Amino acid sequence: MLSIGGKRMRPLLVLMGCDLFKGDINKAIHPALAVEVFHNFTLLHDDIMDKAPVRRNKATVHAKWNQNIAILSGDAMFVKAIQLLMKTDAAKISALVDVFTKTALEVCEGQQLDMDFENRNDVSLNEYIEMIRLKTAVLLGCSLKMGAIIAGADEEDCNYIYNAGCDLGLAFQLQDDFLDLYGDEKQFGKMPGGDVVANKKTYLLLKAMELADKNQSDEIIYIMNTGLPAEEKVSRMKSVFNTLNIADLAVDQMEQYYNDAMQMIQSLHVPSENKQQLIALAEGLRIRVS
Amino acid sequence: MLSIGGKRMRPLLVLMGCDLFKGDINKAIHPALAVEVFHNFTLLHDDIMDKAPVRRNKATVHAKWNQNIAILSGDAMFVKAIQLLMKTDAAKISALVDVFTKTALEVCEGQQLDMDFENRNDVSLNEYIEMIRLKTAVLLGCSLKMGAIIAGADEEDCNYIYNAGCDLGLAFQLQDDFLDLYGDEKQFGKMPGGDVVANKKTYLLLKAMELADKNQSDEIIYIMNTGLPAEEKVSRMKSVFNTLNIADLAVDQMEQYYNDAMQMIQSLHVPSENKQQLIALAEGLRIRVS
Repeated sequence: MLSIGGKRMRPLLVLMGCDLFKGDINKAIHPALAVEVFHNFTLLHDDIMDKAPVRRNKATVHAKWNQNIAILSGDAMFVKAIQLLMKTDAAKISALVDVFTKTALEVCEGQQLDMDFENRNDVSLNEYIEMIRLKTAVLLGCSLKMGAIIAGADEEDCNYIYNAGCDLGLAFQLQDDFLDLYGDEKQFGKMPGGDVVANKKTYLLLKAMELADKNQSDEIIYIMNTGLPAEEKVSRMKSVFNTLNIADLAVDQMEQYYNDAMQMIQSLHVPSENKQQLIALAEGLRIRVS
Repeated sequence: MLSIGGKRMRPLLVLMGCDLFKGDINKAIHPALAVEVFHNFTLLHDDIMDKAPVRRNKATVHAKWNQNIAILSGDAMFVKAIQLLMKTDAAKISALVDVFTKTALEVCEGQQLDMDFENRNDVSLNEYIEMIRLKTAVLLGCSLKMGAIIAGADEEDCNYIYNAGCDLGLAFQLQDDFLDLYGDEKQFGKMPGGDVVANKKTYLLLKAMELADKNQSDEIIYIMNTGLPAEEKVSRMKSVFNTLNIADLAVDQMEQYYNDAMQMIQSLHVPSENKQQLIALAEGLRIRVS
């Protein structure tokens, strides 16, 4: 599971959260690994639940071995994550386990909401935001906060950096939704519109449903349920989205979360130069929309 | 999952392990709950893997809801177990998490071995003992040791009481194997021989395979693979077991583990009267074979 790769963004955030407060990042290494192992455990179990055969062009664990091995391997990875989490200053363990376990429960809850949404036709935009906050964003906030805790940051700064991570997580998830349809095919190496073809309830679709008049709403439902060829499905949906100005609205929303994150980072009680690495990371991951 | 009941033996052992060393059992209550929640999490995931529709005459979680809910609920229960484990003296947390996570990994390993054994025809008695040690026995040892740690027992006593719990766990599991075939139908409320009907690799079967000559071995294989009616299957297998004296050998082995446990309890550096509750519990669970 771990060998199939990944950006390793979460452990990086733990180390950066520690470094930002001039903590000893050697003490953050094992907790950083804990977050990455935990994240991969959630992916492993999610792949079972989603019946996903492939992740990052490699066979998933349940596809390569079998479902029972995948369930148990995930369970064992979570135990390993806890073992890694404990390998730091004893005085910090209680606070680390608090935020880590609270976050882990939220991630489970987010995954359950995501599955529930597949069978619902009345998901609101607010519910969607809450789902991606739980499923994805809080673990980024948790990662930064864990680093801050290890560095001995005070509670106020821990909360600021946690919120910054959550806001960045929300921005990145909306980016994913945006890029799936509006991304550069050459750059991302896949046909645009996979989410539209799969009728996935993304920010784009839910925003469009929210704004659509009766005709547009009927057109969206027709596109989703009529078994159109993939290309026609994508082009017709894009045309509805364009009429409703969905791309711009999505970018505005991303920018809002991005700016919220920056404001949280600016509020941190550390010298400005300490913040530059985190700001640069966030800038580097931010999409450019011309 | 928790509401379907159970003997609650593991949390009881945590409290008894603490009380035996005159610790404050109020400090052991949350860690005791942690072990019970963890145990129920493993049952929940085991039921998925074993495709079991019923446990204790109630529908299992995956049968009542669905498999994905069962996977996620189990994951969330494990997180809750960790949260409960932390609710005790900060100075004890590191030692508690050490034994708890080591044990949790062993339980996962034991479950994997149990599943592997279903597809193997060459499982040795030693492998079987190792499997039940991992899957069942170590959690009883862990429970007693956690209580001892909370009470501030020294390392030597922690190891004695851990070993006592493991030995009792092995004895109880062999008892289960024994009682499935030789138990009193009236007392246990089910037809004897369920394990034989299911071709389950129990201590009885593996001991018989170990001792069987060519004819007996052929008879065992015939009984297992010929699709005989359940009653004939049980009576013929019992007849082979009787020829090989399996019941007595199983009882001898149980007594051995039981005596090992008692010796470990006797070795503990506490007044004899402190040990009486644990000895009484073990005696109460021990079967009487006339």
